[in-house]
Amino acid sequence: VEPAGPSHLGFPLGEDQLVAAIRKVLSANGPGVAVGIGDDAAVVKGGTVLTDLVLTTDMLVEGVHFDRALSAPRDLGHKAIVVNVSDVAAMAASARYALVSLALTPEVEPAWVMELYGGMLTACDEYALSLVGGDLSRGGQVVIGVTVTGEVERGRGVLRSGAQVGDRIVVTGFLGASAGGLVVARAPGAARVAALSTEWGRELLRAHERPVARVGEARSLAQAGATAMMDISDGLAKDLSRLCKESRIGARVELAEVPVAPQLEELARVIRANPLTLALTGGEDYELLATLGPQSVAPARAALAERFGVPLADVGEIIEEGFLAVEPSGTEVPLEPKGWDHFERG
Amino acid sequence: VEPAGPSHLGFPLGEDQLVAAIRKVLSANGPGVAVGIGDDAAVVKGGTVLTDLVLTTDMLVEGVHFDRALSAPRDLGHKAIVVNVSDVAAMAASARYALVSLALTPEVEPAWVMELYGGMLTACDEYALSLVGGDLSRGGQVVIGVTVTGEVERGRGVLRSGAQVGDRIVVTGFLGASAGGLVVARAPGAARVAALSTEWGRELLRAHERPVARVGEARSLAQAGATAMMDISDGLAKDLSRLCKESRIGARVELAEVPVAPQLEELARVIRANPLTLALTGGEDYELLATLGPQSVAPARAALAERFGVPLADVGEIIEEGFLAVEPSGTEVPLEPKGWDHFERG
Repeated sequence: VEPAGPSHLGFPLGEDQLVAAIRKVLSANGPGVAVGIGDDAAVVKGGTVLTDLVLTTDMLVEGVHFDRALSAPRDLGHKAIVVNVSDVAAMAASARYALVSLALTPEVEPAWVMELYGGMLTACDEYALSLVGGDLSRGGQVVIGVTVTGEVERGRGVLRSGAQVGDRIVVTGFLGASAGGLVVARAPGAARVAALSTEWGRELLRAHERPVARVGEARSLAQAGATAMMDISDGLAKDLSRLCKESRIGARVELAEVPVAPQLEELARVIRANPLTLALTGGEDYELLATLGPQSVAPARAALAERFGVPLADVGEIIEEGFLAVEPSGTEVPLEPKGWDHFERG
Repeated sequence: VEPAGPSHLGFPLGEDQLVAAIRKVLSANGPGVAVGIGDDAAVVKGGTVLTDLVLTTDMLVEGVHFDRALSAPRDLGHKAIVVNVSDVAAMAASARYALVSLALTPEVEPAWVMELYGGMLTACDEYALSLVGGDLSRGGQVVIGVTVTGEVERGRGVLRSGAQVGDRIVVTGFLGASAGGLVVARAPGAARVAALSTEWGRELLRAHERPVARVGEARSLAQAGATAMMDISDGLAKDLSRLCKESRIGARVELAEVPVAPQLEELARVIRANPLTLALTGGEDYELLATLGPQSVAPARAALAERFGVPLADVGEIIEEGFLAVEPSGTEVPLEPKGWDHFERG
């Protein structure tokens, strides 16, 4: 039991100096920000009676979600914001403000912290939100806590719970690239160097280090009538099982239709990896998983292709109960609602 | 570098089961909550064009801010919410929604987590906010990240930056009790047992374990014309120096007027402790520090006494520059803007 306080940071810079340095790298108050960093709380423009407030938070822990020896702080900061923007996007909402809490170990250099904030600010610029506050403390490991607020027209947030029997299950973009990038990053020296000398290898690593939040795509899917939507952070199989649970329905997935990232075929030639397994169970793709009435798939696909150049795969249908995969041969097998880790162990 | 995901928790319960258990202890969606825990993000009633949105976040790290061997999880959860409500209150705002991120180590029992949430819910009930979402992950130490949103009439938030030369510096309640409680908690066995057998000892420990956020008091001070306000989390000396820096002014504090918690005199009789030092530099009192025009002090004091039974001490005045303490003898000395830890070391 120790009192909270700046004197416990144990940095070369005290908390107040570090906050002062961070305030310098943060841009001036963005649109709608009355008070940003430096007061007890941030004060920002609220919504209106026509909007709902959307709130999400995520904690990235060193040794669990990232390794400081492997991740550039700029990438890490960028990703910390993007994964939260993705959660807001998956409600069909627009991100507005971010708060960042950091626990730092004494050996972390102030320059590392500045780079981390640099990456966060880049992401905030890309997705048009403002970083308005946060908290710093000492820790036994680095922990990055991000909260993002967003706004959506009142009652128009697209939830996980709205899927209907007969709906088609759709997925944006390609799956498994982030998990493939992780395979590349973890490959033994020579294999990693070889992979990173190829375009596909760099693309996979980039997918892992710089995920993209599908903000506009989510708005388009909502406009096209998505009945349920979420982002895929823990793999299609696991996240679809969550959507099914919230909607109290089942699903049948056509494995041949799962949009496997094309670079994974290249990866599988040089490093032991199963592209379909990576696509089904790999985490951190941040693509959208949605359900749509059958007549809405074609217009949604056209909208995504035209506006964003992003493909929309129709991977199966919502059924009354059961959680099934149809193999290319036509055989139905149970789909295991498991993420990356379990499959690798199994 | 590992993918984020539930499979990395390594608990007896997986993340989804733990989330299910947490959802059971959480009350049904509160007022204004369209979607609480279980979706990508929470969806809540936003503000109106007449309100500003207030946002604050705080991270409590095991071994830095708390010790699981010494703190009951129910107290810890309660305090984690209250310290954030206090930050919102210090803007003269009302807390509305809370998000909680938890990093847990594998040996943490689910029952501990449930007790922690129990404490958070009790605090949410007491301060009329709703716990609407969060995040769970594995960590090398327990980390509790809390974000609280609040609402205030547009443009009416009371900042740290508004103090004017000639304003009086006022403080609610008494200072140093939380730091005194920490002294009690850390005292050697016999001294601790002796202290906890007394009413003053139990009151000090209670002040440390169950701080109170001065929500109504902050509203009253704002109505009375507070020009600047903040909560005292790191000690009067340190926090007043922050307020001065934001307002670009100085302060002169009359040490004889600092409202030292009366229990500290009892403490000092049995354990080596300096009541005034604890009151000036002890953290976690969560009393309010505000500045008021001289003519506003008496009405503000009357309002706080009548509505809340809480005293308001006039501890000094805002000056153009300098950071000074006036000793009871009348001698002016520099006031060190330091918190608890530095003083104890010095």
